[in-house]
Amino acid sequence: MRFLVHMVVNVPHAMPKAEWDALVATEKAYAQELQRSGHWAELWRVVGQYANYSIFDVSGNDELHDLLAKLPLFAHMTITVTPLAEHPSSI
Amino acid sequence: MRFLVHMVVNVPHAMPKAEWDALVATEKAYAQELQRSGHWAELWRVVGQYANYSIFDVSGNDELHDLLAKLPLFAHMTITVTPLAEHPSSI
Amino acid sequence: MRFLVHMVVNVPHAMPKAEWDALVATEKAYAQELQRSGHWAELWRVVGQYANYSIFDVSGNDELHDLLAKLPLFAHMTITVTPLAEHPSSI
Amino acid sequence: MRFLVHMVVNVPHAMPKAEWDALVATEKAYAQELQRSGHWAELWRVVGQYANYSIFDVSGNDELHDLLAKLPLFAHMTITVTPLAEHPSSI
Amino acid sequence: MRFLVHMVVNVPHAMPKAEWDALVATEKAYAQELQRSGHWAELWRVVGQYANYSIFDVSGNDELHDLLAKLPLFAHMTITVTPLAEHPSSI
Amino acid sequence: MRFLVHMVVNVPHAMPKAEWDALVATEKAYAQELQRSGHWAELWRVVGQYANYSIFDVSGNDELHDLLAKLPLFAHMTITVTPLAEHPSSI
Amino acid sequence: MRFLVHMVVNVPHAMPKAEWDALVATEKAYAQELQRSGHWAELWRVVGQYANYSIFDVSGNDELHDLLAKLPLFAHMTITVTPLAEHPSSI
Amino acid sequence: MRFLVHMVVNVPHAMPKAEWDALVATEKAYAQELQRSGHWAELWRVVGQYANYSIFDVSGNDELHDLLAKLPLFAHMTITVTPLAEHPSSI
Amino acid sequence: MRFLVHMVVNVPHAMPKAEWDALVATEKAYAQELQRSGHWAELWRVVGQYANYSIFDVSGNDELHDLLAKLPLFAHMTITVTPLAEHPSSI
Amino acid sequence: MRFLVHMVVNVPHAMPKAEWDALVATEKAYAQELQRSGHWAELWRVVGQYANYSIFDVSGNDELHDLLAKLPLFAHMTITVTPLAEHPSSI
Repeated sequence: MRFLVHMVVNVPHAMPKAEWDALVATEKAYAQELQRSGHWAELWRVVGQYANYSIFDVSGNDELHDLLAKLPLFAHMTITVTPLAEHPSSI
Repeated sequence: MRFLVHMVVNVPHAMPKAEWDALVATEKAYAQELQRSGHWAELWRVVGQYANYSIFDVSGNDELHDLLAKLPLFAHMTITVTPLAEHPSSI
Repeated sequence: MRFLVHMVVNVPHAMPKAEWDALVATEKAYAQELQRSGHWAELWRVVGQYANYSIFDVSGNDELHDLLAKLPLFAHMTITVTPLAEHPSSI
Repeated sequence: MRFLVHMVVNVPHAMPKAEWDALVATEKAYAQELQRSGHWAELWRVVGQYANYSIFDVSGNDELHDLLAKLPLFAHMTITVTPLAEHPSSI
Repeated sequence: MRFLVHMVVNVPHAMPKAEWDALVATEKAYAQELQRSGHWAELWRVVGQYANYSIFDVSGNDELHDLLAKLPLFAHMTITVTPLAEHPSSI
Repeated sequence: MRFLVHMVVNVPHAMPKAEWDALVATEKAYAQELQRSGHWAELWRVVGQYANYSIFDVSGNDELHDLLAKLPLFAHMTITVTPLAEHPSSI
Repeated sequence: MRFLVHMVVNVPHAMPKAEWDALVATEKAYAQELQRSGHWAELWRVVGQYANYSIFDVSGNDELHDLLAKLPLFAHMTITVTPLAEHPSSI
Repeated sequence: MRFLVHMVVNVPHAMPKAEWDALVATEKAYAQELQRSGHWAELWRVVGQYANYSIFDVSGNDELHDLLAKLPLFAHMTITVTPLAEHPSSI
Repeated sequence: MRFLVHMVVNVPHAMPKAEWDALVATEKAYAQELQRSGHWAELWRVVGQYANYSIFDVSGNDELHDLLAKLPLFAHMTITVTPLAEHPSSI
Repeated sequence: MRFLVHMVVNVPHAMPKAEWDALVATEKAYAQELQRSGHWAELWRVVGQYANYSIFDVSGNDELHDLLAKLPLFAHMTITVTPLAEHPSSI
């Protein structure tokens, strides 16, 4: 089932840049792994913001939370989740 | 280019039910026509609400407004539009 | 899986009282049927408001939307849905 | 009587990780003790967030505040409390 | 136990004035009865608004909801309830 | 005349604990002095929060601000003030 | 003592225009009477809105509520009141 | 001097369509007259909404309010005004 | 022309107290200079807050921004500006 | 196509002043380069705030995000983007 996920990154200015860059690199690898497995179905940048709108395709709430909580940037993001259902006009 | 579009339907309780049903049927036909043409790329129901999250794929702002303003339910919806860009981690 | 559901009833003052009372009676019967089937796991009144907080136990987003959209008062409620996951400290 | 309690954890990035981990461990033990005593009736993770929705079953406002104020993470959480009453349609 | 209750009256302009005045008179009588019984411990007008802040002294959530739901103006008010506890600095 | 005062304490985690404890002790003494003089007519803890709702009984706006600005925790609180008037249904 | 008062007029489109115009004329006369008595110390239009910011100079909360509640448009306005005190840098 | 003006049109569904269409036609003529005179410097549609963002170039607050209050749709719009100044990086 | 200006001071707890006190003293001198020149027409403390509501009387937007941006506390304040016009009922 | 862009600068008080000043100077040069190329069509200071409203003229969402993300102050700004379309009353 699908969920719309909104992630806003809150950059911790106190963290050394090298440490942050390493974290971001790990995040990218993890995000691409989840895309390849089909869980992270879509990933779009919000124009003008360090934020994204994503669509996840998971077996349910527990799997979604598990995937999100493992995001390397999880502690530095504000995440909101909207459950989606099939739309009767969708073809 | 892509836009996330959030549409909330405000049902006009004063409108005769037959008139409303006719409007909704027209909306559905129009939504399916736009899906077939590829402009309305995705259409998801927000769980528990008379609302949807959609992704539109259009040539720009003017085309998007033109498509949305022609929605048969346009006068009865609260619409918000978020421009989306390619995400560097997207594969 | 579980979802926290918040329902606020917006009483349509223009509707004849008998019609509204009939709708509310149907809602009550439907709510009790869903409680008996185990889908509507909990139902609490918010103190001082014509509103409730409920916990639903469903197979996923589509079933939840289907159940909520069939609520006799659906057109007269503001509903928000929060997906819940197992908590690691829960026993 | 029951209360819906929403807790959002605000991780203090300036605190040494070991100190934080110790605090979280104490929180977990305390949460499980309150669950065993029946005061913390339900505990659910909010999907995608370091937050929970809980239902407390207490003798009243003073007991609830006393229990919450003793949470080891109390100083690092944003807590909101909603009093719940029996619902006339609840079976 | 005490609760802070905020009530905002939404005057239904479509209701005949005599009907509204009768409702308001019943509300006043009921409010004074609850003050005499000690349940409605304090009642203050919010300056410049058709609203009040009140303190209720009740046996718990169920009694509070029961008293508020019987307010003659209940269907025409927006009510919010804040549970209060003893303050350690209170004398 | 009466004012409803809402105070939320923002604990400064960077301040040494001893310094904060001393400040809190001074606050308590000052709060009790104002209660004894009759200016701080009521003081209630908001359940689950480091916050209070209070009722002040003062000669006017200037005296109220003077009393609040001298609170030892003033620099660490978010305070909102609501002026109250006699309610016509109050007995 | 002074209060900043913000008034937003909500025009009742269902009211006959002549009735509304009469109400507005009464409001204007009353506003000018309060300005002449010195209670309505200042009256400014908010640019682009059917709203004003005003400063009232009254003996206290009760007098202010009494003056505002008698506004002919009181039932059609959203009013917010901010108590003001002398500023130490004011000359 | 310049002001950013945001106008949201609230369509009065109770008004006969012919009356509304006439009002909208008058609005258009007035808007074009103000553009020709140079007061309404820019006029942009907000994508997906019956709303616009405009830049006005006027002699001051009084002239701006006078122009906006004469808009044929003024009673049916929510207008917000943001004063703009020269930007030091503007060329 | 007049503007309502709301200033909220955000005290930088990390700044040495002597440095802050010096800044505040400079702010006071500058505020009194602007009052004497007639630009800062009124200055009122918001009761219970480190904030003020002021009325400025300036030649236009650019002069107002210039005066506000030179406030010694400018970098430590949240400022909002509301343009005011003559009110037709003002005498 | 045009976008309204709102930028609010969040000054990092922990950053050394010289470092910040250098960043601001780079921002200014970059802003002027984008104005000269025609992408940053308008740039206005919001009165009383370290913020601007701008109009960008770009080929689409991707180009806009690319330009904004390269702003030297990007990590220190809160940016919101509103897509604009041609207005039927614009001349």
